[in-house]
Amino acid sequence: MQKDASLTTPAAIRKIVRGGDYSGNTSGFAPGFVQANLVILPKQYAFDFLQFSQANPKACPIIATSRLPGVTDMPTVGEDIDIRSDLPRYRVFKNGQMIKEVTNITEYWRDDLVTFLIGCSFSFEEALIAAGLEIRNITEQRNVPMYLTNIACQKAGIFHANMVVSMRPMKPADAIRAIQICSRFPGVHGAPVHFGDPAAIGIKDINKPEFGDQVSIREGEVPVFWACGVTPQIAIANAAPDFCITHSPGHMLITDIPNSKMAAF
Amino acid sequence: MQKDASLTTPAAIRKIVRGGDYSGNTSGFAPGFVQANLVILPKQYAFDFLQFSQANPKACPIIATSRLPGVTDMPTVGEDIDIRSDLPRYRVFKNGQMIKEVTNITEYWRDDLVTFLIGCSFSFEEALIAAGLEIRNITEQRNVPMYLTNIACQKAGIFHANMVVSMRPMKPADAIRAIQICSRFPGVHGAPVHFGDPAAIGIKDINKPEFGDQVSIREGEVPVFWACGVTPQIAIANAAPDFCITHSPGHMLITDIPNSKMAAF
Repeated sequence: MQKDASLTTPAAIRKIVRGGDYSGNTSGFAPGFVQANLVILPKQYAFDFLQFSQANPKACPIIATSRLPGVTDMPTVGEDIDIRSDLPRYRVFKNGQMIKEVTNITEYWRDDLVTFLIGCSFSFEEALIAAGLEIRNITEQRNVPMYLTNIACQKAGIFHANMVVSMRPMKPADAIRAIQICSRFPGVHGAPVHFGDPAAIGIKDINKPEFGDQVSIREGEVPVFWACGVTPQIAIANAAPDFCITHSPGHMLITDIPNSKMAAF
Repeated sequence: MQKDASLTTPAAIRKIVRGGDYSGNTSGFAPGFVQANLVILPKQYAFDFLQFSQANPKACPIIATSRLPGVTDMPTVGEDIDIRSDLPRYRVFKNGQMIKEVTNITEYWRDDLVTFLIGCSFSFEEALIAAGLEIRNITEQRNVPMYLTNIACQKAGIFHANMVVSMRPMKPADAIRAIQICSRFPGVHGAPVHFGDPAAIGIKDINKPEFGDQVSIREGEVPVFWACGVTPQIAIANAAPDFCITHSPGHMLITDIPNSKMAAF
């Protein structure tokens, strides 16, 4: 990819990705635009999965679903999208096991597949930064720390999981502001689910996240916990549907939707 | 029903209704608790309908879905609910035509039926009144005026409709406050979708609502329009599924959920 291409329009980045010229992660790409997690499931599981997301909107906020099983466009989130080629990297699962990591899923496509796009913390982190708040994982150039909790999501059909949370340390006054700001973005995880004592939600060691990296927590700061998009991945792993495709972590669909459009008010 | 029974707990009212001792409307019953619209569909239509609601959350805000096809409890919204008997009055549809209005649907129950509970404006009207705002349809003891608009909902599977809106006239400063308050209640229609010029959303005569009653609009007031729960009824009428059950208008399920719990923040 040519220099600074990451700063061009979402459509231009998707074209480069579709052409096979970029297969890396999309962190920091197309600032200001929504990036989305991907889940593709056969129609037979689609109601259960949508019901799981509806019952657990903080952990699994749906941005869009495909118009019909088998279609590969996503007109409500971007022009001329082909969901089979426009993400840099995909994971293909059979019976809950990853069988392949690929840059294009055209050969796996079937007429019964339903696409789900799920909101991502990139959007609310941008809103928090715009409000002058520090995001520790960005300052320390690490992946956000994520933890398995004892908070049971509401079960739906074959899908069940305990909630995974991401954590950002903040001074209480900043946490209050973050709660206010994130409340405006229910489509990208919304308000935090917990702050303070990690043990209260079943986290044994705040310095040992199950996913991502450890970040510093400074004097006077409390850990603030948001429902995390890894939760639906756990639900899918638990359900082990016979077929499933997701994005590879960090390798997201860049949509034409401005982050500001995700604000509920 | 004995005097003042309408002011007892939701569970007590449901028991009276289940026993067949009350089949009237539930307006004003159990103040402070969420009342819900009902849609029951065979599982084959359930994904499409949930997808329609997900794509059009202001018009069709889902409060809960049944745990599994065929079950008749709704544990997330109330204790010991039997969805077949706990609403005062139901409408049964075949191929889009109403075939019967009944007070109990036990004889129509099937193992493939999925229940949807949909948020209702009663909840946000209570929040507006608590904030000191006047709700004209309540002051004038009329049903809220509702209008068909030219705002196309996003289609999902067999379900499509233009949005139906309800209207409450307000002074601009009150409308602004109402927008702020309703923004906190995305589960019960959320913020308004339009205010001012009715023609801009395809309403020909503000004094001739398609549903409900006309209310006065006073000097200095603007009409304020909210997405309305009649919209999914239009979508169902358009789709004409082979079988469907809804509540009769105004004859709702009274849940154990306090209205205050519907606030997103």
